[in-house]
Amino acid sequence: MRNRSTVMAWATATCGVALAAVVFASSGPQAANDAVRRVRDSAGFKTAMTAIDRDHDRLVAEIVRLTEIPAPPFKEAARAKVFAEMLRQSGLADTTIDAEGNVIGVRKGTGAGPLIAIAAHLDTVFPEGTDVKVKRDGTRLMAPGIGDDTRGLAVLLAMVRAMNEARIATASDILFIGDVGEEGQGDLRGMKYLFQKGPYRDRIKMFISIDGAGGGDDITHGAVGSKRYRVTFKGPGGHSYGAFGIVSPAFALGNAIRRFSALTVPTTPKTTFSVGVLGGGTSVNSIPFESWMEIDMRSESAVELAKLDKTFLALLQQAADEENATRSTAQGPITVDPKLIGDRPSGQTSHDSPIVQTAASVVQAVGMKPRFSFSSTDSNIPISIGIPAITVDSGGRGGRAHALDEWIDVEKSSSLPGIRSALILLLTSAGLK
Amino acid sequence: MRNRSTVMAWATATCGVALAAVVFASSGPQAANDAVRRVRDSAGFKTAMTAIDRDHDRLVAEIVRLTEIPAPPFKEAARAKVFAEMLRQSGLADTTIDAEGNVIGVRKGTGAGPLIAIAAHLDTVFPEGTDVKVKRDGTRLMAPGIGDDTRGLAVLLAMVRAMNEARIATASDILFIGDVGEEGQGDLRGMKYLFQKGPYRDRIKMFISIDGAGGGDDITHGAVGSKRYRVTFKGPGGHSYGAFGIVSPAFALGNAIRRFSALTVPTTPKTTFSVGVLGGGTSVNSIPFESWMEIDMRSESAVELAKLDKTFLALLQQAADEENATRSTAQGPITVDPKLIGDRPSGQTSHDSPIVQTAASVVQAVGMKPRFSFSSTDSNIPISIGIPAITVDSGGRGGRAHALDEWIDVEKSSSLPGIRSALILLLTSAGLK
Repeated sequence: MRNRSTVMAWATATCGVALAAVVFASSGPQAANDAVRRVRDSAGFKTAMTAIDRDHDRLVAEIVRLTEIPAPPFKEAARAKVFAEMLRQSGLADTTIDAEGNVIGVRKGTGAGPLIAIAAHLDTVFPEGTDVKVKRDGTRLMAPGIGDDTRGLAVLLAMVRAMNEARIATASDILFIGDVGEEGQGDLRGMKYLFQKGPYRDRIKMFISIDGAGGGDDITHGAVGSKRYRVTFKGPGGHSYGAFGIVSPAFALGNAIRRFSALTVPTTPKTTFSVGVLGGGTSVNSIPFESWMEIDMRSESAVELAKLDKTFLALLQQAADEENATRSTAQGPITVDPKLIGDRPSGQTSHDSPIVQTAASVVQAVGMKPRFSFSSTDSNIPISIGIPAITVDSGGRGGRAHALDEWIDVEKSSSLPGIRSALILLLTSAGLK
Repeated sequence: MRNRSTVMAWATATCGVALAAVVFASSGPQAANDAVRRVRDSAGFKTAMTAIDRDHDRLVAEIVRLTEIPAPPFKEAARAKVFAEMLRQSGLADTTIDAEGNVIGVRKGTGAGPLIAIAAHLDTVFPEGTDVKVKRDGTRLMAPGIGDDTRGLAVLLAMVRAMNEARIATASDILFIGDVGEEGQGDLRGMKYLFQKGPYRDRIKMFISIDGAGGGDDITHGAVGSKRYRVTFKGPGGHSYGAFGIVSPAFALGNAIRRFSALTVPTTPKTTFSVGVLGGGTSVNSIPFESWMEIDMRSESAVELAKLDKTFLALLQQAADEENATRSTAQGPITVDPKLIGDRPSGQTSHDSPIVQTAASVVQAVGMKPRFSFSSTDSNIPISIGIPAITVDSGGRGGRAHALDEWIDVEKSSSLPGIRSALILLLTSAGLK
């Protein structure tokens, strides 16, 4: 998912109309405004939105159906299979699953525009065995992964059906994608394959990610970079009583966590760190031969991330050294092995780029103020290789992403505007005929 | 297993003959010496040892057979079933498996002595799926659990057969027991049932545990007490980037481990602490909603153990409090739940008690110097309720208990003396007729 840091507000949000007029005096925004209004006011778009409005219950049913198919990291296949079939039934006969596991449905355009991709991710952060049954309380639905990003998948299906029903033609071919590996250790593997190895590499010229519930005013154009490690402390291990006094990898790990937790990082550019998963040890009465943790560090700034990375690696070694200095190494010392398991590039799609200009115009055209943000999303990969990309909301209210009590609200009047914004963005970018 | 702390040497071991003479001047040791010599020199005992010597290959084969039946904590049933059948085939028709899972075979005496029990434990520390195939290198056998305590089970079988072949009669009825739950989280459940709930509660007047390879000079008469906890820190959890700044149970846990690792404990009475297993967290990019550890604290002294326990519980709360003071609790605070998963009493069987006097005499009678030690073994339970109990070696050399490369050496001349000592101890205690 993206979990955004809003780094600057659009001019109108803070500076009022006068400055906004100056900003919009440039040709880019004005052209974008015109194109967006043309789509918004078109008969095709209106017909499409009527269909989405009418079929809102189907959207909700599809969110529930997809949410209840577990899609842990690296195990998205079951959900992918169902989503591919749903894409076909929604009108994309040309739907395949690529070698990495991404579901890709092609909607042909007139051939007059560049290839565009729009994606939501199949995977959730939740491990196998997590209860993914959706609990309903009125319009509020609660289940792990329901907003991040299962709602996004269902929105793609709704868009395809609405476009077909409205017989909308676009200049560009559009790839509708349900991708794998957005979360955690997936390390954007779906996007890396799509943009670097798969049959569409070098062909996609613009990318839109639909990720996370939200009202439709957020434009994630900045890629938060991240470094992730699985850090294993190893030692000789032994009996908790008989071998007492020898070095312990668990103690070294505790020291490392303590040091890590005490670091200070800048608020701007936003920089964060976290210990996610812990493990290691064989029994309560044995000194472990290994203890490990998986950690995550992120920053909007490549410089700050590199600084944090260096500090982190140093404190790991300090923790190992301190344990070796404190207890006996007669049976062997503590060693530490930080294995890089995630490495996402920082970067951003320029404010001047058509996709960002269009997205900002869309937000304004539906009466909201755009917020520009950085996050770590599928867009990181195209952004890192210079392909214009942004991530936007799938609509509706929601919260507690990555927690077991994750929820969305499918109350229709708050659920639809975000879908509406995303569809205008897509049709404008793809060149509505 | 027992992992011993030798707390005092027998007088002769350090002070020479003069002091030894003083110590042995009291009637207890002298009576014990006489009784032990009577057994050692009896025709019945000699015939029994001839049988054990002759059938040593069968002992080895039975060690291998039993070792290769996995017996993880709480899953000893398969091994118990086979061991019960082997006890029957070795001559104890009156063999049952009690409600807790202990195998108990009865060898009737003349009725002139109190009921005596001798036991080895069925369970190992190793989880399901551990490869328990025995690897042989000459007389050296390597496999998880082979010395702790599978060799002990096979020694019980050899004793029963040898006693029957020699037509040995004892005053006491003897229970031969293969018990469950000696290790780790088993928390001595086999013994707790036997002495507190089962049909033999209040009837057993003396207890001998055969546990772990060793030459036969060690007498564990002291019970090392232990407290074990599974400690879970809980918090609201959330996205590692989006929710950065909220309290983290992993950080609180790291702080607790750090504080725990820095405690000082006395060398005498030996007191220890360890973090065994770590866990918790759902993904690398989520702040966990829980992080947990399993810890073990032990002491020869009930007072020191209680002190350590109190300090530990306080530092857990301090770690939670400190995390709540350091980061935001807007989504909820960190709480800590220390669940007691092991509680073994401390205590000791007095040096003056007949069983310890007899064991010491046995060690001397076979030409060695007795070593007195404390450990955590099946004897903890009878000791804690005032029943004389000790734990002794099953014989032979061995090492690396609780490790995957655990080994024993079944070279006959070093394998037999420990069995010989244990049999003299048993027959003297049971009143050889």
